[in-house]
Amino acid sequence: MSATFDSMWSDLEPVGRTSNGGYRRFAWTAQDHALREWFSAESARRGLDQSTDRAGNQWSWWWDGPGTVDEAAAGRRGAVMGSHLDSVPDGGAFDGPLGVVSAFAAIDALREAGFVPSVPVAVVNFVDEEGARFGIACAGSRLLTGQLAPERALALTDADGTTYAEALRAADRDPSTLGRDQEALDRVGAFVELHVEQGRALIDLGVPVAVSSDIWPHGRWRFDFPGEANHAGTTRLVDRHDAMIGYADLVLGARTVATQRGCVATVGKVQVTPGGVNAIPSHVTGWLDARGADEAAVVAMVEELTARSVGIGASVERESWTPTTHFDAHLASRLRGVLGTEDEVSVPILGTGAGHDAGILATAGYSTAMIFVRNPTGVSHSPAEFAEPDDCHAGVAALAASIADLAGSAAATSTTTSAATTTPTDGGDR
Amino acid sequence: MSATFDSMWSDLEPVGRTSNGGYRRFAWTAQDHALREWFSAESARRGLDQSTDRAGNQWSWWWDGPGTVDEAAAGRRGAVMGSHLDSVPDGGAFDGPLGVVSAFAAIDALREAGFVPSVPVAVVNFVDEEGARFGIACAGSRLLTGQLAPERALALTDADGTTYAEALRAADRDPSTLGRDQEALDRVGAFVELHVEQGRALIDLGVPVAVSSDIWPHGRWRFDFPGEANHAGTTRLVDRHDAMIGYADLVLGARTVATQRGCVATVGKVQVTPGGVNAIPSHVTGWLDARGADEAAVVAMVEELTARSVGIGASVERESWTPTTHFDAHLASRLRGVLGTEDEVSVPILGTGAGHDAGILATAGYSTAMIFVRNPTGVSHSPAEFAEPDDCHAGVAALAASIADLAGSAAATSTTTSAATTTPTDGGDR
Repeated sequence: MSATFDSMWSDLEPVGRTSNGGYRRFAWTAQDHALREWFSAESARRGLDQSTDRAGNQWSWWWDGPGTVDEAAAGRRGAVMGSHLDSVPDGGAFDGPLGVVSAFAAIDALREAGFVPSVPVAVVNFVDEEGARFGIACAGSRLLTGQLAPERALALTDADGTTYAEALRAADRDPSTLGRDQEALDRVGAFVELHVEQGRALIDLGVPVAVSSDIWPHGRWRFDFPGEANHAGTTRLVDRHDAMIGYADLVLGARTVATQRGCVATVGKVQVTPGGVNAIPSHVTGWLDARGADEAAVVAMVEELTARSVGIGASVERESWTPTTHFDAHLASRLRGVLGTEDEVSVPILGTGAGHDAGILATAGYSTAMIFVRNPTGVSHSPAEFAEPDDCHAGVAALAASIADLAGSAAATSTTTSAATTTPTDGGDR
Repeated sequence: MSATFDSMWSDLEPVGRTSNGGYRRFAWTAQDHALREWFSAESARRGLDQSTDRAGNQWSWWWDGPGTVDEAAAGRRGAVMGSHLDSVPDGGAFDGPLGVVSAFAAIDALREAGFVPSVPVAVVNFVDEEGARFGIACAGSRLLTGQLAPERALALTDADGTTYAEALRAADRDPSTLGRDQEALDRVGAFVELHVEQGRALIDLGVPVAVSSDIWPHGRWRFDFPGEANHAGTTRLVDRHDAMIGYADLVLGARTVATQRGCVATVGKVQVTPGGVNAIPSHVTGWLDARGADEAAVVAMVEELTARSVGIGASVERESWTPTTHFDAHLASRLRGVLGTEDEVSVPILGTGAGHDAGILATAGYSTAMIFVRNPTGVSHSPAEFAEPDDCHAGVAALAASIADLAGSAAATSTTTSAATTTPTDGGDR
């Protein structure tokens, strides 16, 4: 890797790291402030034009041509790279930061190669992508594009009862300015987000990078199982109405039905009332996360699990649902051409089960692509996620080649595409 | 019911009641203080001799004969009634208080009938029977009899991190005096605890009261299921190591095996790491509560469930185990004779799956019996627990008849029986 990549990575490494080696980098905290200061310093070091939009996302524009960034973008909109710097609880070092660090490194590589962009080029740091603190993922890009209403965001609370508005004020930001930012959006032509792969496809394929086709349809459902509180020692089995039994059936049923239908399903969160060792549960709530490449299969899976649970007295509520999010197929094909030619290897095209800011921009109608970098553990949202230095280098090269193509002298950059291809409900699964 | 019973019940009714109609009466809280003040006022109203032992249990002695209570008890030990006034979280009004109120009412009934005890008679309020705040059930009777070491109790913490020692100080008690109280024990001949039934046996039998034979063997086991944290959207099912799957298998397995072996088994508490909706659980801990009339069957059930979970990588730890606790069979038979004769009905004899202070005293070698009063809902540890006024009256009459027999002119009261019949580990299931 380049010295500057390594140095950027080393500077980020200690921020928000816990004793178990994982990261806790939540929006608008002291850790987040340190990450934003880092972003600002990297921009300043490169002489980039910094701004923060009304949603709190940080932008650093590279434009050496005539006029301001806004004047240039009014003619031909910019080519944007970036990702996010926040993390899930006890997350890894790569999910988010790899995309931001690689974007700065791509600018360095392009400058070293003597490239002069014919449209403005930017690095963006989307705030609060993981939603770890306030529960809504991609809050920064949703607010920017108007997919999350500011009044709803401001009322969100974290585990300590602090509202989003209070968190903004504590971070020296004025909550009244929060919201959609047309001026910031008007500069954006295309967006390319580089991300560590969250799976094992590139291990199996034996190549370092891929381009993404779409984000799988995904949603979250709340299953409430009723029961009757009673004493664990004195209540005969036949007299019991134990809410935990239905919950356990959902957990095992989700695995079975997901296998049958070729989807994934997870029950990762549960709440039990009263939750005592010697008390028969009177209420259990479980949350089902369901996704898959085939939207009809996901819907059928959830319908089957819902019928099964409702049949034993449960109630089921959909908390969020996002249909398939398609990235710009033309842009993906163009990037595959550029990358494949350069590396003389085939660049695979992959779907992904995770949500991203790139998905939010695609939904808002922007020309969007993602580049995935091989993850030798295949693990994500864990300190075990990783990318080898050589693969990180391949990622930076791929990103630089993409930007060279998008910001080259040809009239290459798309303006916004026709319309949003999905109609997500908010709520924020990733 | 008698007017005094009704008035005692009405005075207790609002103490610690929550908006859902349940009770939160935890040891050494403001609610507990109000209950102790109530106990003291009822004692004073009847001119009883009040004392508090080194464990914090309240005693009210009725002795109109020559000499002090201690002098009288030195000749022939006393006959004690009582129970506890604290509750589980969101518990009912009857579990505990019915035994204390009935004991005062029994004294009233005996006095009205002109009965003059030939040995001292007491009402006791055992503190912290439910263990809802500090996690060890029957803490008051365990401390009194030396089955719980004071240094261990003092270090226990509640959910807010307050230690037992701090809670005692906040209640104006000196923690250094906590511990076994030989003086208080030396007054006790026999103990009869009246309790609302925690089950449906008396409904099925169609009678208002029963006498108890024993407390079932019971224990608590902690099952730890390992997993690997990963993203719920991007991890293929075949690549997953989801700790929730093993947990769900334990829940369903416990029900199946308990049914096969004629025991009861409950999984009422679970902890999930990291506990996010879109995160595959990396660790799940479940607690198994297992009981049954047949000790060998309970042991075999737990062994089968342990083998099943260990087979998929779990670790299992026994947190507590109490073999069968036998009450005094001679005393039970004598009380059945007294009660059956009086009411001209057969008095059934029942085992119970719940722990009680009477079990702690039986283990300590005291002659102990329990009287159960019919519960038309069969529900326990819930606001739904109940006893009809006529059945409460039958309970008071049964208790009064028992005390009349034990404290009558015949040399009726046993001294301590030979030895403890069980060797419980502490930890406190009830």
